[in-house]
Amino acid sequence: MSIMEDLYPSRQAETPSISERPDPVVYGDMAAISGKPLSLAELQFYEEHGYLDFAGFFSEAELRPYQEELTRLWERDDITTWPEVITEPGSDEVRSIFYIHQSNDVLRRLLCDRRLVAIVSQLLGSEVYIHQSRINYKRGFDGKEFYWHSDFETWHIEDGMPRMRAISCSISLTENNEHNGPLMVIPGSHMTYVSCVGQTPEEHYKDSLKKQEYGVPDHQSMNLLVAANGIVTPRGPAGSVTFFDCNIMHGSNSNITPWARSNIFCVYNSVDNVLVEPFGGQKPRPDFIATRQDVSPLQPA
Amino acid sequence: MSIMEDLYPSRQAETPSISERPDPVVYGDMAAISGKPLSLAELQFYEEHGYLDFAGFFSEAELRPYQEELTRLWERDDITTWPEVITEPGSDEVRSIFYIHQSNDVLRRLLCDRRLVAIVSQLLGSEVYIHQSRINYKRGFDGKEFYWHSDFETWHIEDGMPRMRAISCSISLTENNEHNGPLMVIPGSHMTYVSCVGQTPEEHYKDSLKKQEYGVPDHQSMNLLVAANGIVTPRGPAGSVTFFDCNIMHGSNSNITPWARSNIFCVYNSVDNVLVEPFGGQKPRPDFIATRQDVSPLQPA
Repeated sequence: MSIMEDLYPSRQAETPSISERPDPVVYGDMAAISGKPLSLAELQFYEEHGYLDFAGFFSEAELRPYQEELTRLWERDDITTWPEVITEPGSDEVRSIFYIHQSNDVLRRLLCDRRLVAIVSQLLGSEVYIHQSRINYKRGFDGKEFYWHSDFETWHIEDGMPRMRAISCSISLTENNEHNGPLMVIPGSHMTYVSCVGQTPEEHYKDSLKKQEYGVPDHQSMNLLVAANGIVTPRGPAGSVTFFDCNIMHGSNSNITPWARSNIFCVYNSVDNVLVEPFGGQKPRPDFIATRQDVSPLQPA
Repeated sequence: MSIMEDLYPSRQAETPSISERPDPVVYGDMAAISGKPLSLAELQFYEEHGYLDFAGFFSEAELRPYQEELTRLWERDDITTWPEVITEPGSDEVRSIFYIHQSNDVLRRLLCDRRLVAIVSQLLGSEVYIHQSRINYKRGFDGKEFYWHSDFETWHIEDGMPRMRAISCSISLTENNEHNGPLMVIPGSHMTYVSCVGQTPEEHYKDSLKKQEYGVPDHQSMNLLVAANGIVTPRGPAGSVTFFDCNIMHGSNSNITPWARSNIFCVYNSVDNVLVEPFGGQKPRPDFIATRQDVSPLQPA
């Protein structure tokens, strides 16, 4: 257990609870926008809603080398033997490849893109490093759902992320439309912390990355959040980018359409928010899920 | 096996195949619209796309007694013991209640609604009877997906429906929106018959109504249908009605939102298209799934 005060207890009480977020959403001086990528209106939107989406952020031409790299990875025979590769429940199909910022020079270039790093640094009011990165493949025909969750809840309890000062960035590699199981976010839900029930078993991540069973918000909390805020689905062509707060409640339905939905997912954490001991008391998860080693400030490419 | 010629073989060959539909979509004289509910434009839309949807077809006030009847049914302790009740895979939660046109006077009134019967009679060019009826509950949070299927393929192979001369009617009891796993149809797919692979086991319906494993179209056929036609999602408030051709390819994704999605589903078949022996050679399914007994023309209420 960390010796740091736990501002966000979860998986301890026998009943769920919700509380207001004590941390800021946008860090630093919002008015100081000179030379920075986001306008005041964009900062205010992010602060209120907890996400920002940019349809067509990367052009097709910019995206092509990364898509080719993905195809190359996908076709490797040994891929399911890598520890950082997660397969679908009950099959050998690749669901996610983690740690791409360390294992793959091509994809690392994308994650260090100057514009991405500038945006998250502006929102977090500091330099950043990559806490986690991965490729998610959501196949056509039988793409599985991701149930509602706050990433922060898991990162806090299982990884020891102290405060809400991290941003997830999803770069779509395929079109996201209303039919192919797109990301759903509950705007405004980042202001509420939902404390979950249920102890976390050791090495939970080996199952949770396929299907989450702990850190799952209760129905009543979800009813409240959705009734207050509704549900929003950022959509757009391949190359669209969505930034979202580490605590926003999000999930996605299954995908029976023939249209696969793949994205690259990267979590930028403030260098002032590095991991401590997990607040759930378990031993830390591996570095490929939650970086502890390389937390030096990211150098934009 | 039926002695009637099988115009729509399926689950016989080792490879899937697709073929053009030999049957009409709209029966009778399309120009004879005097005194009938659908306009020529609506008939032509249905003929081309295979469906017609009417947002807010029934008003809230009209719908209320039926919703109350559903709540009453839902709360009955003995409901899961009824043979015509299908539960979710792996649980005792009610997924569907069949045979409501025979077992429930209140709901029968809805299914015999004068406007509904007039529309399907106009499209099918004859009097009609109810081939199948059911309530579908798609719960919030863990509503399951329905994979793509043509109803006709199953009704032909497992029930002996000779020709494509039946219409499904879905009456929504809750809002259908883009997020809660709404019905997806592939417009125009009703013109193509997808012959599936795999023998049908005896008493297949006991599993197939939870999760279909036979009569499942192959990926290549689905790719072709979607590439040619796209996907459409009829949406609207409770009380909306969608009519769709018995052979249109349709399905739905899962539903993790808190918004349940329930509907009443009724299949009207032409009195000139009553069931014969199943074309798959198995013994007929029970009457509560595929009516053989009461096939006299429906009297509108």
